[in-house]
Amino acid sequence: MEYHVDGQLVPAEEASVNVRDRGFMYGDAAFETLRAYGGEVFAWDAHADRLERTCETLGFARAIPPREDLRERIAETLAANDLDDAYVKLSITRGVQAGKLTPDRAVDPTIVVMVDSLPRGGVDGDPVWDGPASVRTVETRKIPDAALPADVKTHNYLNGILARLDLQRGASGDPADEALLFDTDDYLAEGATSNVFFVADGVLYTPTTDQSLLPGVTRSIVLDLARAEGLPVETGRFEREELLAAEEAFLTNSTWELRPIEAVDGESIGAGPVTRLLSRLYDRRVERSCYE
Amino acid sequence: MEYHVDGQLVPAEEASVNVRDRGFMYGDAAFETLRAYGGEVFAWDAHADRLERTCETLGFARAIPPREDLRERIAETLAANDLDDAYVKLSITRGVQAGKLTPDRAVDPTIVVMVDSLPRGGVDGDPVWDGPASVRTVETRKIPDAALPADVKTHNYLNGILARLDLQRGASGDPADEALLFDTDDYLAEGATSNVFFVADGVLYTPTTDQSLLPGVTRSIVLDLARAEGLPVETGRFEREELLAAEEAFLTNSTWELRPIEAVDGESIGAGPVTRLLSRLYDRRVERSCYE
Repeated sequence: MEYHVDGQLVPAEEASVNVRDRGFMYGDAAFETLRAYGGEVFAWDAHADRLERTCETLGFARAIPPREDLRERIAETLAANDLDDAYVKLSITRGVQAGKLTPDRAVDPTIVVMVDSLPRGGVDGDPVWDGPASVRTVETRKIPDAALPADVKTHNYLNGILARLDLQRGASGDPADEALLFDTDDYLAEGATSNVFFVADGVLYTPTTDQSLLPGVTRSIVLDLARAEGLPVETGRFEREELLAAEEAFLTNSTWELRPIEAVDGESIGAGPVTRLLSRLYDRRVERSCYE
Repeated sequence: MEYHVDGQLVPAEEASVNVRDRGFMYGDAAFETLRAYGGEVFAWDAHADRLERTCETLGFARAIPPREDLRERIAETLAANDLDDAYVKLSITRGVQAGKLTPDRAVDPTIVVMVDSLPRGGVDGDPVWDGPASVRTVETRKIPDAALPADVKTHNYLNGILARLDLQRGASGDPADEALLFDTDDYLAEGATSNVFFVADGVLYTPTTDQSLLPGVTRSIVLDLARAEGLPVETGRFEREELLAAEEAFLTNSTWELRPIEAVDGESIGAGPVTRLLSRLYDRRVERSCYE
């Protein structure tokens, strides 16, 4: 595999950043996880928008290249690896600066594109996951907005890692696939790498972005698809019991797309007609955007 | 300058980590900032203890080499650069693993030692800072323990960076030297890279580690020195007004040692006899530990 680092395609084993790069020293970097289907990056504008917002919050938005340049780096990386259907991670760090914490205003960012092969998506595609997700709620709480805004996607990912470690620490037998975090007010927030939805009495529910949670690109597309289909949708603050009582539940992220939740804390939930309908609508959206 | 990366001394410009290293991808790494005086690392055991605690929280304590091995890497790096008085940053990442967020239990850590030259310390030494610190309180709040334990020191440092960016954003003229963060309950916590102390009516105050704050090694030594000297000491939860009303105030970290606070939010405080006494006692401790 070849990755794109700082303008060059290099073998993955040699793809590196200097230890003084602030992306390494402090996790001082923005990123997006994307999927390419048939050689085409899906929902590029939504990802590019969020990446810009992250860089704005981190104070280096003016130093990043135009989004067409970023897209071209992704295209070059896919082409170099002969990949049509792929996982793509695009990272932009604040680069190497003088050895102090306060950022310099002059930024020479480090831009990294990493890719990996995925199965075909769309109408005739296969899910990338092995089966529905087993989910556990964990003790680790989401970082509140006042400390680190949740609507930005950065290389400071220990909060999610600690949540996943909670799964291993509590596990007898196989640990769950995803950790579900509450916010510091004890409302359901999101998974370590996913947003959560559930269905009760025909209504589709998902935690509101007024809470500390990432406004996922897939989450947003699923909400659009549901509304366009005339499904009743409610975003709000929810408790664990409301999820456990649901008829259906699923997780979303760009890689998984929609992944049904089999069980939460050992209590069965599973997929159902709403989850299956939204999955098909999502597949059609992917098919039309990328394969046709 | 040469750095120590993964067992090898390499020129700083070539010192790098793979982009798949979890230290880069997620800030999934522990670190310590230390000072060497006269070729001797100061307070090594306290730093090594905290580093182990951090690795324990991150779940890879069993994968790290014995502390004598780590100390030897620091010694080799100092020797290679012919440095006696130096800044030392020791980082241990979870290394390269398969491309998913959940950590593998098998860890091959990446160990990095970075150094830089500093002036002599101790009784005849010079401070590394240019003058007393100008400090501003900021909007960014400390991450609560429930989301990311504050007693660990990791490469997830955006909370402190956002606090420092608050200084630039609010600044007319020169930005302040240090950002002072409150916790989410609005009590004084610490600076972005320092602990804070103040003196009122002859009593030395500093926020308690029951709050979300890093138990600084220098903070702990200063508390010991104050108690040994018979100074009244109180740790607790404090509000901004109590700091502003103080007769003296100072910041501590391993690099700065004790640095007087000239002003908080533009209101003068300054050094005084207690700050000067503790600085001298600290210098004597350094002198005895490292130079004699």
